[in-house]
Amino acid sequence: MAFLTRNEVFSCFVFYAVLLVIKMYILAIITGQVRLRKKAFANPEDALRHGGLQFYREDPYVERCRRAHINDLENILPFLFLGAIYSMIGPSLSVARLHFLVFFLARVLHSVAYLFALRAPTRSLAYIVAQIPCVSMALQILVAVAAYA
Amino acid sequence: MAFLTRNEVFSCFVFYAVLLVIKMYILAIITGQVRLRKKAFANPEDALRHGGLQFYREDPYVERCRRAHINDLENILPFLFLGAIYSMIGPSLSVARLHFLVFFLARVLHSVAYLFALRAPTRSLAYIVAQIPCVSMALQILVAVAAYA
Amino acid sequence: MAFLTRNEVFSCFVFYAVLLVIKMYILAIITGQVRLRKKAFANPEDALRHGGLQFYREDPYVERCRRAHINDLENILPFLFLGAIYSMIGPSLSVARLHFLVFFLARVLHSVAYLFALRAPTRSLAYIVAQIPCVSMALQILVAVAAYA
Repeated sequence: MAFLTRNEVFSCFVFYAVLLVIKMYILAIITGQVRLRKKAFANPEDALRHGGLQFYREDPYVERCRRAHINDLENILPFLFLGAIYSMIGPSLSVARLHFLVFFLARVLHSVAYLFALRAPTRSLAYIVAQIPCVSMALQILVAVAAYA
Repeated sequence: MAFLTRNEVFSCFVFYAVLLVIKMYILAIITGQVRLRKKAFANPEDALRHGGLQFYREDPYVERCRRAHINDLENILPFLFLGAIYSMIGPSLSVARLHFLVFFLARVLHSVAYLFALRAPTRSLAYIVAQIPCVSMALQILVAVAAYA
Repeated sequence: MAFLTRNEVFSCFVFYAVLLVIKMYILAIITGQVRLRKKAFANPEDALRHGGLQFYREDPYVERCRRAHINDLENILPFLFLGAIYSMIGPSLSVARLHFLVFFLARVLHSVAYLFALRAPTRSLAYIVAQIPCVSMALQILVAVAAYA
C-alpha cells in the first residue's frame, strides 16, 4: 500500500471514486431489473428467453435508466481521471475533500433526480454543481503542468 | 520503466487492460465495416458519400454493434480505473492475475456473444462473471482507503 | 507535485488530456444549448419546464451532438488510460509529445467536423488519424509489459 498511504488526498479521492463506480454498477442492475419487470429487451435473443419477440421493444422508463447511465459515463469517468491527477499536484486535504465530496453528493442526487423524474431543474442543478469541482480541478491541473505543453 | 518494473501486479493489469482497449477498438472497426456493407449511416454526409441520403438510416445489426460497444464503455472503462488502484493496495500476484484474467475472458466472451447473438443467457452470464472481479476489487479498495474518507 | 515534476512526459500528457476533457465538457454545454434553442428535450420533466410535453422530442442536430459526444467517450476516455501508462514506459519527450499532439489536434478536428457536418470523409479521417497514436501507444505498452502476462 506504499503509494496510497503516502498520499492522503489520493486515498480520499479513491474512496469517493470507488463509491461512484459502485453507484454506476447499481444503475446497471436497476436497468436490468426494469427490463425484466417491464418486459422490454434490447435484443431479440433476450426477448425470446423471456416470453417472445413481442418483448423486443423499447420502454420509456428503461430509456430513462439508460440516459442516467450514459450521463454517468460522460461525467463520472472523466472525474476518475481528473481526481487522480489533481491528487498529485499537492492540494490541501480539506480543499481536495471538498471537491470530491461535492462531486459525489451532486452525482448521487443526479441519479436520484433522474430515476424518480424529479421536477426540473433538480437534475440539471445537480449536474451543474457536480461540474464545478471538475472544472476547478481541470484548471488547477492545467496551471500546474502548463510549462510542459 | 521505473514504476512499471517495480510493480508486477500493475504490469500484469496493464497487459490485460490494453488488450481490452484494443478489443474495444476492434469493435469500432467492425461497426464501421458493417455500416459500409449494410449501407446504414448515422450521418447524412456519410450517406451522401456512399450512394445517397436513402442510406442515412438505422440497421438492426449496426445497432447491435453499438450496444456491444456502449456496454464495453460501461464496464471496461471502470475496470481500467479499479484495476490500476487495486494494483496499488498490495494484492498477491496470483490473486490479482485471477481477477484480471476472469474479467478479460468474460468481456471477450461478452463481445462474441453480442456480435453472434448467442442464445440467452450467454451474454448476460458473461456480463455477470466479469462483474465479480470488479466488485471484489472495489470492495477491497474501499476497505484499504476507508480511513481516509 | 513530486510525481508530476519528476516525469516531463507525464506532465505533457496531462496537459493535452485535460484540454480534451474540457473539450468534452464544452460539447455537453453545446448539446444543452441546442436543446434549449430547438426546444427538444430528452425528458418530459424538462419539456414541461420549457413550454410543454410537445417539446419532449428528438431533434436531428441534438442527436448529432450526442453522437459526437459518445464518439469522444469511445476514443478520448481510452486515451486517458493509454497516455498515462505510455508515459511510464520511458518514451522520449519529443516522440511522446508527437503522439499526444496528433491525438489532440485530430480529436478537435473530429468534433468540428461533426458539429459543422463537414463533407465526408473529413470526420472519418480525423478519427483514423487520432487512432494512430493510440494504437502505437497500445503496442509499445504491450511490448513493455508482455513479460508479466
